[in-house]
Amino acid sequence: MRFLHTADWHVGKNLNGFDLLADQQNVFKQIEGIAQDKKVDAVVIAGDLYDRSIPSEAAVHQLNQELYQLNLVDHLPILAISGNHDSATRLGTGADWFARESFYLNTTLEEAFQPVTIGDTEFFLLPYFGIQAVRNCFGDDKIRDINTAMARIVAEMQKNFNPDKHHVLMAHFFAAGSERTADSETTIEVGGLSAVATTTLAPFDYVALGHLHNRNALHDERVRYSGSPIKFSVSEADQEKGVWIVDTAPFKAEWVPLKPAHDIHKLKGSFEQLIAESSQQPQDDFYDVELTDHERIPDVLNKLREHYPKIISLHRTHEARQIAVDHSQTRRKQSPTELLADFYQQTMGIDMTAQQAKWAADALTAINKED
Amino acid sequence: MRFLHTADWHVGKNLNGFDLLADQQNVFKQIEGIAQDKKVDAVVIAGDLYDRSIPSEAAVHQLNQELYQLNLVDHLPILAISGNHDSATRLGTGADWFARESFYLNTTLEEAFQPVTIGDTEFFLLPYFGIQAVRNCFGDDKIRDINTAMARIVAEMQKNFNPDKHHVLMAHFFAAGSERTADSETTIEVGGLSAVATTTLAPFDYVALGHLHNRNALHDERVRYSGSPIKFSVSEADQEKGVWIVDTAPFKAEWVPLKPAHDIHKLKGSFEQLIAESSQQPQDDFYDVELTDHERIPDVLNKLREHYPKIISLHRTHEARQIAVDHSQTRRKQSPTELLADFYQQTMGIDMTAQQAKWAADALTAINKED
Repeated sequence: MRFLHTADWHVGKNLNGFDLLADQQNVFKQIEGIAQDKKVDAVVIAGDLYDRSIPSEAAVHQLNQELYQLNLVDHLPILAISGNHDSATRLGTGADWFARESFYLNTTLEEAFQPVTIGDTEFFLLPYFGIQAVRNCFGDDKIRDINTAMARIVAEMQKNFNPDKHHVLMAHFFAAGSERTADSETTIEVGGLSAVATTTLAPFDYVALGHLHNRNALHDERVRYSGSPIKFSVSEADQEKGVWIVDTAPFKAEWVPLKPAHDIHKLKGSFEQLIAESSQQPQDDFYDVELTDHERIPDVLNKLREHYPKIISLHRTHEARQIAVDHSQTRRKQSPTELLADFYQQTMGIDMTAQQAKWAADALTAINKED
Repeated sequence: MRFLHTADWHVGKNLNGFDLLADQQNVFKQIEGIAQDKKVDAVVIAGDLYDRSIPSEAAVHQLNQELYQLNLVDHLPILAISGNHDSATRLGTGADWFARESFYLNTTLEEAFQPVTIGDTEFFLLPYFGIQAVRNCFGDDKIRDINTAMARIVAEMQKNFNPDKHHVLMAHFFAAGSERTADSETTIEVGGLSAVATTTLAPFDYVALGHLHNRNALHDERVRYSGSPIKFSVSEADQEKGVWIVDTAPFKAEWVPLKPAHDIHKLKGSFEQLIAESSQQPQDDFYDVELTDHERIPDVLNKLREHYPKIISLHRTHEARQIAVDHSQTRRKQSPTELLADFYQQTMGIDMTAQQAKWAADALTAINKED
């Protein structure tokens, strides 16, 4: 069989204050098109479907529509797990009904051990988990680290392996290649958090990972990150985004790139150069700007924004401190009441009513009085 | 056919700071039992399934489980609409999949005009709506009031009536009996908001309403509120809670009462009397207390709570001002950081991590600095 491997959609994420929903919808349509062109038998989404545990109503609406389109209109089986950004409980709403239409969404460790079989392959859907959940699941308080936990989980999954099938694991964690010494395994740390050694995942023919946004975070034929479908920060500016098309007989993975609706560019130059070159740059893209000028230019960010409206960061070559840029930086001058109104608007997708605003103002006044 | 009519579950609501989830689960089991005993062909839930647009994870988990039990375990068709307390978008997640298992959940006005047919009856599922949504739906800015809006909605529904079937409307709004003068209809107001005249609903054989928590809010054989399944405030203390079992051939409605896990009682007496009688009162029930003493009793609330732990309001016969009582009144002495931690805990169902608490504290410090 053949499946499409993607992850880390982070629906509802914004980029330094800029709403990405339209860009995310654009890339979803590309993924849908690839799934159809490549005639895949399933779409695998390895966690972080949403950007936060309580996504905005607009984000909920968009992801609902996308999953509806893939599963009920295009009739594509979907396999999905919750990531660390998702609320397992909230995301899991409806999963028992979804499964009846070949949309398999798993958000609990307890349900990770029974595979979903599609064609010649058994898929094990392991959501993001904490060590305590593994201790509870096996009734074993001695499980202390992620590799011990994963070894137990994998052993439990292997009990249910049908030897006539291929075996694919879907998971959402840090994984890293392992360096073995004679009789001990080095603990591997990525960004201060311990990582799962790829050797622990040896029983699987393919591991479809989510969590890291760079598909090159790991160099392994068998254990792969798809990365996110679009760039979510300046640190991702140089990454090519895409999806894996994975064949199971024999196993091979083909990389299919995705085209960003609005790319992130890094620019470096003097104020004068940047202004002069601006007409050749796409107006609607995002920019990280490094200014090489020695002298201070008053109100430089606003001046640059007349030419590059979507600047997301600004540095100076000759000044150590980065100038923090956030589209939403006006917040700093907002009152707590305005902040709350903003939070409400972003979470609910609608403005507070006059009555709600009054309640909020009264409550905040009351808090300040009591301090 | 026969259906059970309920509404206003408000899953996740608390009563003056007391969590009601266990009580709500208890009454759900009773409703499930009645549906089975009475061999109903469908369960009708007329809005306000949740108490708020962003329910806690615990509330989401509980309602998900209840709907799973009714629909996928007991194999009961469910008909449900969103109420004013629900977020239509959030509640609507999964609805397209639910419908394939005879769980019909409608949260949009646009989809209210196509009936769901069960046996001899066509059900029209009209969610809570605002006037603007009706204007948009019909492209008519002249729709100004709820009765004009409902007349248009009903006329549109009638176009789809199968004359060989009975017709039931499910809706979530204020309704009231209409007083006609010679040639104009009196505008009826309930609590300052205009109400739908029951005459507007004449084309239907039965109207299953939600919104008002008292089944006696309306005296009409054909247009009924089920009320909420449990008491949600002292103002509901004297109401009997229950569900309607509605038969369609011929139409008749039988009232089946529900037993509260913890009732709300109104007590009136002197401090001495109340203490003396306390041993005869159920400890775990909720109490509204009216004190008849003339003299001030120091720390009276805490003294009473030793005997009645769940006092939800306290008045004095000889003092005009009501003493506000809230189980969560300790909040008043909390810092903004503690308030935020509480909000997080209540919304997410888990405590903030140390890292999150630090971020929150830093953010609040930053806000205060900028004031």
